[in-house]
Amino acid sequence: MSHEQVRRILADLENGALDVSDAETRILTLLRRAPFEDLGFAKIDHHRLERRGLPEVIFGAGKTPRQIAAVAERIAASGTTLIITRVTTTAFEAVRHVVPDATFHETARMITRRATTEVTGRGVIAIATAGTSDLPVAEEARITAEALGNKVDTVYDVGVAGLHRLLSEHDRLNRARVVIAIAGMEGALPSVIGGLVRAPVVAVPTSIGYGASFGGIAALLGMLNSCTSGIAVVNIDNGFGAATMASIINHLD
Amino acid sequence: MSHEQVRRILADLENGALDVSDAETRILTLLRRAPFEDLGFAKIDHHRLERRGLPEVIFGAGKTPRQIAAVAERIAASGTTLIITRVTTTAFEAVRHVVPDATFHETARMITRRATTEVTGRGVIAIATAGTSDLPVAEEARITAEALGNKVDTVYDVGVAGLHRLLSEHDRLNRARVVIAIAGMEGALPSVIGGLVRAPVVAVPTSIGYGASFGGIAALLGMLNSCTSGIAVVNIDNGFGAATMASIINHLD
Amino acid sequence: MSHEQVRRILADLENGALDVSDAETRILTLLRRAPFEDLGFAKIDHHRLERRGLPEVIFGAGKTPRQIAAVAERIAASGTTLIITRVTTTAFEAVRHVVPDATFHETARMITRRATTEVTGRGVIAIATAGTSDLPVAEEARITAEALGNKVDTVYDVGVAGLHRLLSEHDRLNRARVVIAIAGMEGALPSVIGGLVRAPVVAVPTSIGYGASFGGIAALLGMLNSCTSGIAVVNIDNGFGAATMASIINHLD
Amino acid sequence: MSHEQVRRILADLENGALDVSDAETRILTLLRRAPFEDLGFAKIDHHRLERRGLPEVIFGAGKTPRQIAAVAERIAASGTTLIITRVTTTAFEAVRHVVPDATFHETARMITRRATTEVTGRGVIAIATAGTSDLPVAEEARITAEALGNKVDTVYDVGVAGLHRLLSEHDRLNRARVVIAIAGMEGALPSVIGGLVRAPVVAVPTSIGYGASFGGIAALLGMLNSCTSGIAVVNIDNGFGAATMASIINHLD
Amino acid sequence: MSHEQVRRILADLENGALDVSDAETRILTLLRRAPFEDLGFAKIDHHRLERRGLPEVIFGAGKTPRQIAAVAERIAASGTTLIITRVTTTAFEAVRHVVPDATFHETARMITRRATTEVTGRGVIAIATAGTSDLPVAEEARITAEALGNKVDTVYDVGVAGLHRLLSEHDRLNRARVVIAIAGMEGALPSVIGGLVRAPVVAVPTSIGYGASFGGIAALLGMLNSCTSGIAVVNIDNGFGAATMASIINHLD
Amino acid sequence: MSHEQVRRILADLENGALDVSDAETRILTLLRRAPFEDLGFAKIDHHRLERRGLPEVIFGAGKTPRQIAAVAERIAASGTTLIITRVTTTAFEAVRHVVPDATFHETARMITRRATTEVTGRGVIAIATAGTSDLPVAEEARITAEALGNKVDTVYDVGVAGLHRLLSEHDRLNRARVVIAIAGMEGALPSVIGGLVRAPVVAVPTSIGYGASFGGIAALLGMLNSCTSGIAVVNIDNGFGAATMASIINHLD
Amino acid sequence: MSHEQVRRILADLENGALDVSDAETRILTLLRRAPFEDLGFAKIDHHRLERRGLPEVIFGAGKTPRQIAAVAERIAASGTTLIITRVTTTAFEAVRHVVPDATFHETARMITRRATTEVTGRGVIAIATAGTSDLPVAEEARITAEALGNKVDTVYDVGVAGLHRLLSEHDRLNRARVVIAIAGMEGALPSVIGGLVRAPVVAVPTSIGYGASFGGIAALLGMLNSCTSGIAVVNIDNGFGAATMASIINHLD
Amino acid sequence: MSHEQVRRILADLENGALDVSDAETRILTLLRRAPFEDLGFAKIDHHRLERRGLPEVIFGAGKTPRQIAAVAERIAASGTTLIITRVTTTAFEAVRHVVPDATFHETARMITRRATTEVTGRGVIAIATAGTSDLPVAEEARITAEALGNKVDTVYDVGVAGLHRLLSEHDRLNRARVVIAIAGMEGALPSVIGGLVRAPVVAVPTSIGYGASFGGIAALLGMLNSCTSGIAVVNIDNGFGAATMASIINHLD
Repeated sequence: MSHEQVRRILADLENGALDVSDAETRILTLLRRAPFEDLGFAKIDHHRLERRGLPEVIFGAGKTPRQIAAVAERIAASGTTLIITRVTTTAFEAVRHVVPDATFHETARMITRRATTEVTGRGVIAIATAGTSDLPVAEEARITAEALGNKVDTVYDVGVAGLHRLLSEHDRLNRARVVIAIAGMEGALPSVIGGLVRAPVVAVPTSIGYGASFGGIAALLGMLNSCTSGIAVVNIDNGFGAATMASIINHLD
Repeated sequence: MSHEQVRRILADLENGALDVSDAETRILTLLRRAPFEDLGFAKIDHHRLERRGLPEVIFGAGKTPRQIAAVAERIAASGTTLIITRVTTTAFEAVRHVVPDATFHETARMITRRATTEVTGRGVIAIATAGTSDLPVAEEARITAEALGNKVDTVYDVGVAGLHRLLSEHDRLNRARVVIAIAGMEGALPSVIGGLVRAPVVAVPTSIGYGASFGGIAALLGMLNSCTSGIAVVNIDNGFGAATMASIINHLD
Repeated sequence: MSHEQVRRILADLENGALDVSDAETRILTLLRRAPFEDLGFAKIDHHRLERRGLPEVIFGAGKTPRQIAAVAERIAASGTTLIITRVTTTAFEAVRHVVPDATFHETARMITRRATTEVTGRGVIAIATAGTSDLPVAEEARITAEALGNKVDTVYDVGVAGLHRLLSEHDRLNRARVVIAIAGMEGALPSVIGGLVRAPVVAVPTSIGYGASFGGIAALLGMLNSCTSGIAVVNIDNGFGAATMASIINHLD
Repeated sequence: MSHEQVRRILADLENGALDVSDAETRILTLLRRAPFEDLGFAKIDHHRLERRGLPEVIFGAGKTPRQIAAVAERIAASGTTLIITRVTTTAFEAVRHVVPDATFHETARMITRRATTEVTGRGVIAIATAGTSDLPVAEEARITAEALGNKVDTVYDVGVAGLHRLLSEHDRLNRARVVIAIAGMEGALPSVIGGLVRAPVVAVPTSIGYGASFGGIAALLGMLNSCTSGIAVVNIDNGFGAATMASIINHLD
Repeated sequence: MSHEQVRRILADLENGALDVSDAETRILTLLRRAPFEDLGFAKIDHHRLERRGLPEVIFGAGKTPRQIAAVAERIAASGTTLIITRVTTTAFEAVRHVVPDATFHETARMITRRATTEVTGRGVIAIATAGTSDLPVAEEARITAEALGNKVDTVYDVGVAGLHRLLSEHDRLNRARVVIAIAGMEGALPSVIGGLVRAPVVAVPTSIGYGASFGGIAALLGMLNSCTSGIAVVNIDNGFGAATMASIINHLD
Repeated sequence: MSHEQVRRILADLENGALDVSDAETRILTLLRRAPFEDLGFAKIDHHRLERRGLPEVIFGAGKTPRQIAAVAERIAASGTTLIITRVTTTAFEAVRHVVPDATFHETARMITRRATTEVTGRGVIAIATAGTSDLPVAEEARITAEALGNKVDTVYDVGVAGLHRLLSEHDRLNRARVVIAIAGMEGALPSVIGGLVRAPVVAVPTSIGYGASFGGIAALLGMLNSCTSGIAVVNIDNGFGAATMASIINHLD
Repeated sequence: MSHEQVRRILADLENGALDVSDAETRILTLLRRAPFEDLGFAKIDHHRLERRGLPEVIFGAGKTPRQIAAVAERIAASGTTLIITRVTTTAFEAVRHVVPDATFHETARMITRRATTEVTGRGVIAIATAGTSDLPVAEEARITAEALGNKVDTVYDVGVAGLHRLLSEHDRLNRARVVIAIAGMEGALPSVIGGLVRAPVVAVPTSIGYGASFGGIAALLGMLNSCTSGIAVVNIDNGFGAATMASIINHLD
Repeated sequence: MSHEQVRRILADLENGALDVSDAETRILTLLRRAPFEDLGFAKIDHHRLERRGLPEVIFGAGKTPRQIAAVAERIAASGTTLIITRVTTTAFEAVRHVVPDATFHETARMITRRATTEVTGRGVIAIATAGTSDLPVAEEARITAEALGNKVDTVYDVGVAGLHRLLSEHDRLNRARVVIAIAGMEGALPSVIGGLVRAPVVAVPTSIGYGASFGGIAALLGMLNSCTSGIAVVNIDNGFGAATMASIINHLD
């Protein structure tokens, strides 16, 4: 509900085009009307960009290719950046029919179509991973962060078992405005990075590991219990969530 | 055991057709006899409709198509509504042979054959979902509620990340006699709906989500710990259970 | 925000007492103003009774006696029924100073002051427990349900280890409009009751039990996984939550 | 190590065939020698039947068909009853080559070849299940109990949602010397049976169920926390373990 | 409901003292009447001894001393053996007033008053513990088993870290008709005993242990997953439950 | 190791005061020397302020009052801000002896002594709580954030059960540069706030709640699984951690 | 059972002092006799030193002071080193009466009386802790290791949040033959140390931490999932277990 | 960073080839440079052999065959032993192209190419398993230990259900310098072995088992809670980790 709409109703009331009862009804209706588009099985929140600084994003898991394509088509039609996460090639086939210039990112399992390539973030977001196996999550974070208008620097495979690899990248990490630290197994990477840099660290546990890693819970608990300050955590394997948090921070004036 | 049966035995005793010992035996036997039908691997509870107001329902998971079809055939023969949950198309093939007018609901993974289309519930059951991915659970609830004689209103994709979508449906939710609120991830939807409507809210956690959603446990715990009153919870993904609870409430005089 | 308030603003606009800009500001302000009272550390929701059919309730755990008394005083002053859960005698001492006619319920650990003793619920709420140790939770449910205007019938110590005790109360349970079934240990009581009565069953797991009962989780899981239909579950030991759910159902026309 | 062997060594010592040092060595060696057969990857415990009253059993899961067949061949050659659990048809193909008269039980996923069909157990073992989906576990228990020389009575699909089905089988359960009670979901069946019969109840949780049944943990906890006395529990889905426990009890003089 | 009662009603009907309608009412009533005594907060199941071979037992935890004493008085008055578990000295003070010859067992935290000292069990129940810290649980088992008419042999502190201690007691364990094996920490004792004796083994995990023993869960899981056959498990620290299971087995003809 | 120190060694080498071997030894030594102070049981990291923008903080739990006071004295002596978390009054007595102008914050369980009251953060940090019971955590966050040089705005008791209370504070939340959202029970507050504001949201689960809240795990999982973007989570009850994360973000240029 | 004893029996047999039957009985008896001392509630394993290289140790938790003192007296009388873990001052009072020269270690909660102060371990055991709060566990490890004849070097408060503190102690850690690494919270210390030194690392998680540390589980999982090789883990807070493992390694030739 | 490199810089400074500022920059740079090789997606730590006594190992899970082959080629090129764990035949196809003389171990799911067959370990590493199903983990341990230069003795299928099998191998276990004990189910094997031998025991839980073994957690907890001293544990199924720990111990002088 915009101020403008309220003002117009009130003006109509003032100039006699509406009586009090009609104006009241319209205003109450307005309060419940919001800029989303109803597809029956989904309600697209076109207002999110304005309200939150983020476009509406499609979380692909659990949706059929047809549902994904239908929502993608409407978002693309609205001219905002299209971001779809957790998709397979089958979903991409469906989306390509309705959004021909969409791009599929295999490792990241994402589809994007950027409305603009302008860099709007103020600094660099560094994305560090403990190992090579963390790449799918890291790439989800990278694609998302770039689609949201950020410059990204990737620092892969710098786990704490060989500290010198991490220390050798100290400068690149120190230059970042926000650091995304991604690790499976014991999840110690954010703690160590958090002790070395000034930037806020967004930690992402991954589901990589042997036996008692419990699909990432070991890493998640490790990060939540970090002895280092200036770390906050997103869900397991949630590269997308880390990137949106990092992007919001990176867009702060 | 009906009163009538007891009365007949006693009458026979009184008129000398039975002696005390025979009557005793018959009554004791009667106490243990109940209106179920024994197929060897299953005992069909034809009495449930009278006792509980609900027909016997087949929970398909873990049963072979042959077992499902055998039970379905007997229920259909008894003339009551047939409801089968958690089935695949293979099971439907088997059921169709013995109950030709049964219907398969793909999204809901159900088979039904309604004995009547009469609406016996007193009000409307509203079914709200947080996202599009919750649809299979919501459809299981909808098909079940309708088969049990209720009018249903569906309000899909009104998750709390965009509150205006939910507020815009405030009226429809307020008109319902019972609300079923379905959500995965953090499961906040029932708490928010519970704060807005007067009706009792039956909450259904779903197994939708990233990483630490633990197949719906995060949502389950969220709903159990709701700060809002007037909410009770059924098992994860249990659209059927929510619908039967809601239907029983909706049939209260 | 009431219709009346909106109408008055619009009328003032129409008769020139307000110009469009002022009216807009007032309406937008109104939208955010709500009938709660701000004590700094707490915001009392006086609107809840109207919106939800329930008075604002004080959850005592984690609050200081002084905070409890301050909120209690304001609620009592508003003339609505006062309900405070999870309190100690120390908190009662503090409340008694500001609400002299409040009552302390020792087993239920509650304080109440009913605005009226009128029975508004349409039928009886039956409260069944599996054992004597479940009494504190049952009493919390009973006091709450009565304070909310319901007639209550208690059926205590009818656990499934001696089925005949439960069967002997079959009639009383069958007469209830809603049943609250409370059990610790394996939590089987609601399943068995659910198979015997027509009423909806609100199940409450309790934290009673040996070893691997895990403070009620065993009972909670048992109830969530009930093979019986028409059961929904509230949180462990949450007698209050069960009573509000039952009361809302019992007040349905 | 049998008494006879010790006696022979000592006799040889006494009659001079051995000197003290040799006798000592032989006795110490004897202490460590035991009647098992070493296949390299496995050590078959032929002594178990004498020591424990049970034949050596092959737990098929995690073993290759070739390993299973090799052990099966040696057990069959020793003339004792052959019992293999958790096998697929592939493993049966391999076993059939070396033990041609072995039998495959599809529902129970077992292979057996009984050394004798003599019934050695003193009474009947009753096997009760809550639902049809518990059949694979119940059949594993039945096949095992019969192979161990017990008479078995099966009472399937008598879950607590329809108590009359269970009560109608009261007599059969009461006639058993041991009852095996098998249930998934909330696992309430053993509690209810335990309240009705005199026999010891061996409870088996199964991994059947919706959502928060956690692969049988809900049922396991329910059974461990049973309010009924005279119940002990085996592992989830462990029909074999229940049957061996029941058989040992049923063979007590 | 006894056969005798049914016969009398039927006889009265036959001889005209009752008409059919009255007889029917009485029989139906009888079906719901059962030999328990209602104290309001508790229903004492005097029928249990006959139905289950066990007296009604009071689980003290969560009950007030007054409630315990009231039930104890009624059980003592009925002449059956009195067994109360999980009590403090405070409860004993209350019980002693109403049952002067009751005995308090400090280590076992129990109160008993045996109706008879007759030994009715057929063999010996051996109770083995892994360590000295398991004594409270072992004593609860011993007192219970003796009160239920069994001869008990205790074999304490024979944990698997020093196998020779266990092996030295091999004969005593082998002479038992049932073995109760009690252990905390990793809970390996039942597995090892189960491999050495012919008797059924009832395993009791205890909450003894460092760090990740999780109040007995480590031992519980160890016992449930035992690689040895002929073992069934009761709840953590549940010496009482183990003793009743063992006693029922030991009383089998 | 500062640049200055390296330069001096090299200068000494150049001017002949050191030979190559000595210089090498000194440099290698220097690499391992760092600006911390060793108290034997503790090593105070005076370098942290420079490296991380945060003073060394004392986590009081698990430390004796004497240890706390000893470290506090050294930090105060160094002139940096003193922050001690999770302390009791006993610890404060000890600290007051050596740092007389330290302040104790009772609700927050903290001791502070600010080196300066200058506000260095660029915007406002808003701290919102769902309920009054979350106050101790909120106060820990507030005291910490202020001690780190931030302006704080508190918005307490705005849980989602009464949405209008939250909506009424929309403007204050929207004006913040960072929002800390604190909630127990189902932890839905950050999701709802995250859908309303542009600022990054640092979510703090609290251990407040009934039954299955598991000491905050329910809220933690709820927040990790939030359907809203731009949220990251710190550990349960970790008001301190949330404030340091928020402060680092708020100090970004 | 020693070789000597067997030889003597056999010699007696050979010289006619025993006949075959007597000799057999004696040998079988011998096999079951072992060098432990039976106090009824406890069996002291005096053989352990010879068999395992470790004295019998008393785990104090769950034992009464009297039981502890009784066992301590017998161990002291046998002349071996006395080690008691997890004791309070009350237990020490009892022990002091029977072992006057025993020493109480307050931080470590231990009692010791060393039979000798000889250093028998081949190298140094380094004990590193992440924080000051880990001291009780570290001291338990130190006292134990020293009592077992090892030289110990302690490196306290070198957690990964300030890597320079750890790097500054690199040389001391590198000189150790075994490293014990102790940490709570995320438990990252062993991973980082394991990447820096050649020695085997025994990792000890501690129960120190905020919120979701779950009494040390977070640290335990972190250590089990370490990405570094050459690390093995003992139970939470088990300083004693780490020291015995380290001592056994340190005594390898 | 080697001493040599530092010396050369300092020499250049001394002889005027560098000025102080350049030397400083070079030294600081050097500190961050380390002997790893950067492939973009991976950083190969060639320094690990020198620093840790272990070659860089490739953990195959979660990496693509192409990534594995690329890293394998570089390691092979460096002349050190190549060890790859958790690989499929597909990965082996890729590796074989670039390292033709690599060997695939099917049961162990490993690829190796030993730089030398020299035995450098001082004693024998014994590997014991409880059952045949533990073989894949045992073989991973064996292949790894041999590749690291150790002599290995395997003692398979000696679980505690038939103690005599284990006792018969007592001598072989006693001759080992380190024992790796591998078991699923209840994981009791390390406890029993630890009570019999002098060597340190590295325990490996496996994910073998029925129902509540939870993929090895039951065994893991059993081992962590072992009542035997001198045991430390690695992660579930982590044969590789056990072997590296054992090898490091076995290479101690």
